[in-house]
Amino acid sequence: MRTTGERTLLFNSEPRLISSAAIVSKVENDGPLSGKFDVVMGDDRMGEESFEKAELRMFENAVRLACLKAGTDKCKLGCLLAGDLLNQIITANYGARNLAMPFLGLYGACSTMSESLLIASVLVDGGYRRSAACVACSHFSTAERQYRFPLELGTTAPPTAQRTVTGAGCMILSDETLETAPYSHIAVTAATIGKSIDYGITDANNMGAAMAPAAADTITAHLRDMDEDTSDYDHIITGDLGKFGTEMLHSLLNERKIDLSGRHLDCGCMVYHPEQGYDCGGSGCGCSAVVMSSHILPMIERGL
Amino acid sequence: MRTTGERTLLFNSEPRLISSAAIVSKVENDGPLSGKFDVVMGDDRMGEESFEKAELRMFENAVRLACLKAGTDKCKLGCLLAGDLLNQIITANYGARNLAMPFLGLYGACSTMSESLLIASVLVDGGYRRSAACVACSHFSTAERQYRFPLELGTTAPPTAQRTVTGAGCMILSDETLETAPYSHIAVTAATIGKSIDYGITDANNMGAAMAPAAADTITAHLRDMDEDTSDYDHIITGDLGKFGTEMLHSLLNERKIDLSGRHLDCGCMVYHPEQGYDCGGSGCGCSAVVMSSHILPMIERGL
Repeated sequence: MRTTGERTLLFNSEPRLISSAAIVSKVENDGPLSGKFDVVMGDDRMGEESFEKAELRMFENAVRLACLKAGTDKCKLGCLLAGDLLNQIITANYGARNLAMPFLGLYGACSTMSESLLIASVLVDGGYRRSAACVACSHFSTAERQYRFPLELGTTAPPTAQRTVTGAGCMILSDETLETAPYSHIAVTAATIGKSIDYGITDANNMGAAMAPAAADTITAHLRDMDEDTSDYDHIITGDLGKFGTEMLHSLLNERKIDLSGRHLDCGCMVYHPEQGYDCGGSGCGCSAVVMSSHILPMIERGL
Repeated sequence: MRTTGERTLLFNSEPRLISSAAIVSKVENDGPLSGKFDVVMGDDRMGEESFEKAELRMFENAVRLACLKAGTDKCKLGCLLAGDLLNQIITANYGARNLAMPFLGLYGACSTMSESLLIASVLVDGGYRRSAACVACSHFSTAERQYRFPLELGTTAPPTAQRTVTGAGCMILSDETLETAPYSHIAVTAATIGKSIDYGITDANNMGAAMAPAAADTITAHLRDMDEDTSDYDHIITGDLGKFGTEMLHSLLNERKIDLSGRHLDCGCMVYHPEQGYDCGGSGCGCSAVVMSSHILPMIERGL
């Protein structure tokens, strides 16, 4: 059986997550995860003439590095599943061009990393591909001008604002463990497809509130489909709800008698120190990509 | 075996394409496929206050109609796979919200319909979902202001320009045929993942030339992976290369000793009459979606 309940997919062969790489800017490396990232950029432009070109460099290098760490050749990867926050997912498209890999472009905004892992797991578990690279990246300076205001305006951020993480994360899924690869104990066993749920939040500076209802719905559906309780999990990890969105998630789930306390981690809340001044934490599809790649996956591998 | 060669996926259970629906504007219905579309909009705004809202209406109605024709309930569909041409694939996202279906957002630009069919086939063939709805849509007036110039400027189109099709197409894939559904003889048997291939075309009015190299590469890879020749196919159909892109495709494939002549159809070349004045044909992800849904699929079903 490869499906259960209404929305959950089961991966019986347990495809392995064998390698990951994370590239960030100095700001992310000044946070609590300092020293855990593979590469920290000296400057936000990475020596390129635009932030967009720097984002592309991060994207490509994250893939190359994850392959290098796995001891595998990118050319041997069956497929690249990737997305970013820019129009026409231009970073992922140019990245796929430069890497010359078979490519499926995804747009999941902040859910891109999870969406790519879901589809890659289906491809590998089903025997359609032997391996796949999943990538998500974002850049503070490209996202600001894409979604909010030109940086030159110097607009101040309201208290609910999260800072878009400047970073790229790549994870490699494989149908077998590799001796050369950093992880051999991490598998994807199930995935639940999310819904687009909209409580009518129109504030571009309150992404947490926009995302929390969908996160609550997906967690509810997953537990129901799997006939499980939160106590069946060591951790339940969300991407980038941030401080405000996390509170909203807990409140929404409490109404449904689902208790996350003591088990919930949010990558957006983990990436910056409070004293860095980004009150509500990090966001953007690079957020979960780099926090998972640098911190969570090594933690799972060690069995912590 | 579920994979062959480097880039091709095999669907041994042959998931069935059981239903489709196409909604277009008057301009498309004035073309050679006149009368074949399910719905022709009276005006490009569909009574909405913006073209974007009209595009959303087309999207939703295409899904509802394809379900209705299949005699199935949209709620019973395992998943919605969709994309469009706008920033943040906003049409697909709002459509998924309004339809309240589990949703995977895709960005493949003009390849969106094929990309969604590929992923849906994996989900259904692999037993992860029993059915899935694939949707792509575009709108001339939203695409112009997204990619080129505001309509109000009245910019004239150069000879290489294609007209973005105003239309939405939905196809439903299922693990079984339904007595109530319009098609029972159409199956997806294989799919080849494309690459992002860039010959450096920077003219936003020459999309055909931008896309032809990738089309040539995918066709070459598919024939090589399947160990087949063009003569093994009744038709080889591309999405929206248009007149110029089609010439370029034939020329690129001739260099590789692959002869498409007599077998190749391009949806972009089929959607408008030459006398309509769109010299190079139609484009946009709605193009292949509506031409396939209204004309090609019924043709395959009848064995023509």
